[in-house]
Amino acid sequence: MTQQSHQQSGHSSTHIASPDGHLTRRHFLQALGAVGGVGLMMSGMSAFGIGIASVQDRPPTLSGTANGKRVVILGAGLAGLVSAYELRKQGYQCEILETRAFAGGRCQTARYGFVLPQLGQDDEVCQFDDGQYYNHGPWRIPYHHRSTLHYTREFGIPLEIFVNYNEAAFVTGPNAKALGAGPIRQMEVLADMRGHASEILAKHVDQSALDVPLTQEEKEKFLEFLVHEGHLDKRGLDYLGTGGRGYQKNPGAGLHSGQASEPYALNQLLNSGLYDIVSSVSGFSQQKTMFQPIGGMDKIAEGFEEQIGDLVRYQAKVSKIQQSDDGVMIDYVDGGSGETHQIQGDYCICTIPVSVLKNIDADFGDEFVAAMNSLSYEPTCKLGLQMKTRFWEVEDHIYGGHSLTHNSETGNISYPSTGWQAQKGIVQGVYNFGSKAAQFSAMDRNARIDKALGVGEQLHAGYRRDFENGFNTAWHLEPDSLGGWAHWSAEGRRTAYPLLNEPQGRILLAGEHLSYLTGWQAGAIESAWIQIEKLHDMAMAS
Amino acid sequence: MTQQSHQQSGHSSTHIASPDGHLTRRHFLQALGAVGGVGLMMSGMSAFGIGIASVQDRPPTLSGTANGKRVVILGAGLAGLVSAYELRKQGYQCEILETRAFAGGRCQTARYGFVLPQLGQDDEVCQFDDGQYYNHGPWRIPYHHRSTLHYTREFGIPLEIFVNYNEAAFVTGPNAKALGAGPIRQMEVLADMRGHASEILAKHVDQSALDVPLTQEEKEKFLEFLVHEGHLDKRGLDYLGTGGRGYQKNPGAGLHSGQASEPYALNQLLNSGLYDIVSSVSGFSQQKTMFQPIGGMDKIAEGFEEQIGDLVRYQAKVSKIQQSDDGVMIDYVDGGSGETHQIQGDYCICTIPVSVLKNIDADFGDEFVAAMNSLSYEPTCKLGLQMKTRFWEVEDHIYGGHSLTHNSETGNISYPSTGWQAQKGIVQGVYNFGSKAAQFSAMDRNARIDKALGVGEQLHAGYRRDFENGFNTAWHLEPDSLGGWAHWSAEGRRTAYPLLNEPQGRILLAGEHLSYLTGWQAGAIESAWIQIEKLHDMAMAS
Repeated sequence: MTQQSHQQSGHSSTHIASPDGHLTRRHFLQALGAVGGVGLMMSGMSAFGIGIASVQDRPPTLSGTANGKRVVILGAGLAGLVSAYELRKQGYQCEILETRAFAGGRCQTARYGFVLPQLGQDDEVCQFDDGQYYNHGPWRIPYHHRSTLHYTREFGIPLEIFVNYNEAAFVTGPNAKALGAGPIRQMEVLADMRGHASEILAKHVDQSALDVPLTQEEKEKFLEFLVHEGHLDKRGLDYLGTGGRGYQKNPGAGLHSGQASEPYALNQLLNSGLYDIVSSVSGFSQQKTMFQPIGGMDKIAEGFEEQIGDLVRYQAKVSKIQQSDDGVMIDYVDGGSGETHQIQGDYCICTIPVSVLKNIDADFGDEFVAAMNSLSYEPTCKLGLQMKTRFWEVEDHIYGGHSLTHNSETGNISYPSTGWQAQKGIVQGVYNFGSKAAQFSAMDRNARIDKALGVGEQLHAGYRRDFENGFNTAWHLEPDSLGGWAHWSAEGRRTAYPLLNEPQGRILLAGEHLSYLTGWQAGAIESAWIQIEKLHDMAMAS
Repeated sequence: MTQQSHQQSGHSSTHIASPDGHLTRRHFLQALGAVGGVGLMMSGMSAFGIGIASVQDRPPTLSGTANGKRVVILGAGLAGLVSAYELRKQGYQCEILETRAFAGGRCQTARYGFVLPQLGQDDEVCQFDDGQYYNHGPWRIPYHHRSTLHYTREFGIPLEIFVNYNEAAFVTGPNAKALGAGPIRQMEVLADMRGHASEILAKHVDQSALDVPLTQEEKEKFLEFLVHEGHLDKRGLDYLGTGGRGYQKNPGAGLHSGQASEPYALNQLLNSGLYDIVSSVSGFSQQKTMFQPIGGMDKIAEGFEEQIGDLVRYQAKVSKIQQSDDGVMIDYVDGGSGETHQIQGDYCICTIPVSVLKNIDADFGDEFVAAMNSLSYEPTCKLGLQMKTRFWEVEDHIYGGHSLTHNSETGNISYPSTGWQAQKGIVQGVYNFGSKAAQFSAMDRNARIDKALGVGEQLHAGYRRDFENGFNTAWHLEPDSLGGWAHWSAEGRRTAYPLLNEPQGRILLAGEHLSYLTGWQAGAIESAWIQIEKLHDMAMAS
């Protein structure tokens, strides 16, 4: 059963990696591909019962019904919602205890009236206009987070593109003046650095001044690549600029044929400190295509709530976690009455962030407690700024993406990927991490906003002029999260991590912290998938 | 007046280019920027009455009212619609003659029942399901086409992102097997080529084996760039692969830490012929961010029709164009009655493609006729394929963008940027040009579809399996276009182009063909902006 479900989930590593059979199969499939294209090859793969090596595409297929076994789920974030949704299908009686008044955990969307508690500070209350919103938790879904996309598809949640890369957005830094006054568009730096580097390499290849084991024919192809990559002049192999860095004056109609722009010199670029702003190959987690739900990230939690909202007990704060040989006993404080209740079950899936969990009275073993204590959470601040006009679109021609500020205090500026050409919009003026986030959150809310406006003002004429109100988030000060996401050290991954993934008697932990996708919704979902499968195996074996 | 409107349109080349004053102003503005950031600098620029050098951002500001002067506009494509919309505001009496039964010209969207006439062949009739549509004319709006975006904003036409680049899409070619069997994702080639090139350059820089005029400090920065750009190992400067080329097995939750993929060798890549598929710096017209109207490109024409639909006479085919010293006389055949009528006006804006116009009886001078005859139009075919499932998303994890086929017969395969995760969708299976398009259009419609399916089948298991119906377009066979767009030779730009841009008595031509943005909607719009300003100057001077 487990093996079957693994296959269906794409976990076919045993097949792919098996030394015997692997190559034979591979050769057979290659032969099929050569004869009949991908169609035939895929059929062949299905015949072998193997899929393309991949993350989990879909929830595990569980066989056998649970006959009403009771599962208490702690937390109605994505890991908890997924667990309840999938386990109920399998005949489990599920109940979710959620400390907040809403589902979704850290997957939140701020709208008018939204209140975010902040430790040691006043609650942050959202003052945006009706219709304006801002995802101050997770905000983007890469195309390869198939688990997240599994549920947006299953629930029919409409998606739109999240623009994660916009070469027309600005870049600045402490030494940016090496490139002259005024804002610099990323495309200028990106085109020129690649142009100059390609020119240098091309000229040395051309003069056979390089130590590379290539045939003459291969060298010519390599030259072709460099000419294309760097937009070099074919004859002289010089980089003379390219339309891709933008025009001094864009081509238009009539006699407006356009006026080329002048590239920066290589040493100018190197001295600007902006030379390595963006690699042409983004890291996997940052690659296109990215999505966001239309209307706010909390649409995903709403999708689950429509299905299993009846299983959630809101404003139920877990105060004690115990288990015996027969079951689990969870105490919680009801936020309305202030009274403590106990709920019992056969199993427990606990999705409470370890940052919070480790402070809850629980009968975990010493080794497990030590593992929890070894895990730290990332401090992180975000700040959404409601702007009276979308000056970044109308005046600066920037539609989505990020302006890179090299300002370690506030981080980059990000533009909304929704409401194109509308009147107002929410700009993300701050996204910082670690000690910088900790320090930033020590400032009062108005000082934080002022700091962010000062940074933005250096890039956009409209930034301070059009500011209306802001929504500050310090995730490490949010009492039910105490951090943005789990931050694993290499040592922690080796020692504490495997232990926290193991069932502790009848209790299984789940959440983004138990994944290699920390801070991403997919990590929470896939962790739940793994843990409910373990739970089901235990339940079926009992 | 003209000067003022030019300034407001951003045509301040006289200011920017003027040798005296230019540098002084520039230095002054730089000083402002250094002191007060962009905000202050922009104020300074406004004080000088100059804007950032740019394309036309908005329609010309015309002063003085036309007192009911009559303008006959030939063609209700974007150039004609813009002309009527702007001139009516200024007091002109406008009438548009449109040969088709709808507005928009070549800006069309195929839906169920849409009929496209094709010379020498049966009409193409769209069989898509309700709700499915396909832009078989212009399909994308780059962020810097400010003129097009001016009207989507003015009319409140909702936009969504057009995904023009997706490194997770496939690439193949005649020698792709040098990289092994099965489909190759573009990111693998892109990451490996840049990795290998950066490694070679970095090692030579490191060993000072290059002839580059950089200081030691600059060399170290250049190395930093190369390490970042190529994702090199910092110590050995080796390219060992990168997450950006995709994983053998993606990182997930629990113990699924992911499994790296192996890079291709440089000579493998060179022999595959796929090394230069995509430059990391796209050409200007192809850069992100790109848009499309939600619901179809024809929403833009609909926006104009809501404003000035009453000015359009549909199914009115122009048969004769004459002018005297006092006005213009246009004969047209009414498509309903078959009768010929004449309409008179003070001026005429003619947006009929020159490919069609040159066959219409008109009293243009010989030189002008010769100029028209020297202009050729690009043959181009497109084919939209309705698919029963979105297998490219569900099975292949490709969301938008283009798979590069290196199949010169049919061109690339493009995936829809709308209806994410819905059941069905329209894939663009063909986009070819020139003589290939001419040859392709000689095949009957089913043979064209079969050819396209054969190409797609090599990349996608679902391609033939899920095909339902197709919509074929050969723009050179569409009788009212006779080509996709104007194709100017360098010689034509020097000689014929300026002449065709000049008023011929009381007649002014406008359209994408009179721009440096041929084939783009912005070219048509900006051409109209330029010509109505000339018309207004003539009318005011008379």
